[in-house]
Amino acid sequence: MTRRRGDDLGGSIVPGRRAVAELLRAGRRPVRWVSLVRGAAADEVAELASARGVRVRWRDPEHLREESGVEVAQGVVAHAAPVPAVPLAALLDATDAFLVALDGVTDPGNLGAVLRTALAAGATGAVLPRHRAALLTPAATKAAAGAVEHLPIALVGGVATALEQAARAGVWAVGLDAHGEGLISELAVVDRPLVLVLGAEGTGLARLVRKRCDVIARIPMTGPIESLNVAAAAAVACFEVARQRGR
Amino acid sequence: MTRRRGDDLGGSIVPGRRAVAELLRAGRRPVRWVSLVRGAAADEVAELASARGVRVRWRDPEHLREESGVEVAQGVVAHAAPVPAVPLAALLDATDAFLVALDGVTDPGNLGAVLRTALAAGATGAVLPRHRAALLTPAATKAAAGAVEHLPIALVGGVATALEQAARAGVWAVGLDAHGEGLISELAVVDRPLVLVLGAEGTGLARLVRKRCDVIARIPMTGPIESLNVAAAAAVACFEVARQRGR
Repeated sequence: MTRRRGDDLGGSIVPGRRAVAELLRAGRRPVRWVSLVRGAAADEVAELASARGVRVRWRDPEHLREESGVEVAQGVVAHAAPVPAVPLAALLDATDAFLVALDGVTDPGNLGAVLRTALAAGATGAVLPRHRAALLTPAATKAAAGAVEHLPIALVGGVATALEQAARAGVWAVGLDAHGEGLISELAVVDRPLVLVLGAEGTGLARLVRKRCDVIARIPMTGPIESLNVAAAAAVACFEVARQRGR
Repeated sequence: MTRRRGDDLGGSIVPGRRAVAELLRAGRRPVRWVSLVRGAAADEVAELASARGVRVRWRDPEHLREESGVEVAQGVVAHAAPVPAVPLAALLDATDAFLVALDGVTDPGNLGAVLRTALAAGATGAVLPRHRAALLTPAATKAAAGAVEHLPIALVGGVATALEQAARAGVWAVGLDAHGEGLISELAVVDRPLVLVLGAEGTGLARLVRKRCDVIARIPMTGPIESLNVAAAAAVACFEVARQRGR
């Protein structure tokens, strides 16, 4: 497996029925082969693979677990070319830009869940830091359920620097923080090109990243535990942007 | 470990720093002991445990993994009495009832994530079916990050029957479905006592459950893959109810 450091995001091992079906349907990157365990989910994928001229290898469950590094309940794993990153400038150029930047999200399942949700909410791209963060491991690709085939992703040296570039391009940065001054449901800047910035669960936005945001908004929480998983926070925030833009 | 089938939800193995800290802080159920691996997260929990008079056992990471059945990155697991279920009638009685019913959610991580999000959004309770669904396994309790210490949960024979009981109590049932006729952001019934009903990922609401809902609402999605993880859908829907109630 060739890994060209810097311009790809990983993602060459694709576990899970949804993720593999979408990989095959989208046809955006070469698929080397699909490994399947006999069963209902596998039959659907086998048909798709055959229609695309992709080789199918029938395996036993243990073999599949070794291949993918994750528990694959549905018995479906694909091996494909890595997901290529796009230049940040291309994402910032769109007049209706709706980007999601993740600063320091280290859990691959959370990363994948955020990408899936962002795409469903109408986001036009994602921004991920190259270091000290999750990239497209098998667990991330599985949780993304095919979103990585469609959502353009930029890899950046650091989120703070990317936000400087966003500001020069006229893209507003909205940071999400439990102590934000405004409500995410009342964003004054929602009709402008924007990038939603989410920090690591627990520590939140890094100080410099926070400083580079034009607006810091919060999701209003109640109850004894005022904390949300980063994937849940991303879901609420992304669909709030969609709702407000749709009015 | 005593398991009384029927009136408890499981949840006696509690992995993860947040979940254990909240278990100790809330003090709602007896804690037998806390197993910790030396480290920063463990020190905070050890202090809390000592303040509560709970025994601490220092372990190695392998031992902890065996005890909890999940990967515990933070080296923290507690052993406690199971989480008791509450009667459905008690949840339905509240004049401001905001309940979340899960029909056929089998992934424990998703169950835990939904409970955490629901509590943060101000939900007053959750409704879970006794069979063919996830209960409070270690993975669920970890993902709930302490929410099970505060959110009252009713165990029911079936969600369809529970919705009949809800109707008799004057609680409106709002089902969430990709093909719902109304938008979740424009609920006419939001100020009434209500129960949000979420189906299994993939298959959605069961036919009978769907029939028992007063309203079927959808989250408006765009893009090539119109699907959301159940935890993401719950986050969007719960915070939509909170937003509309808060106006």
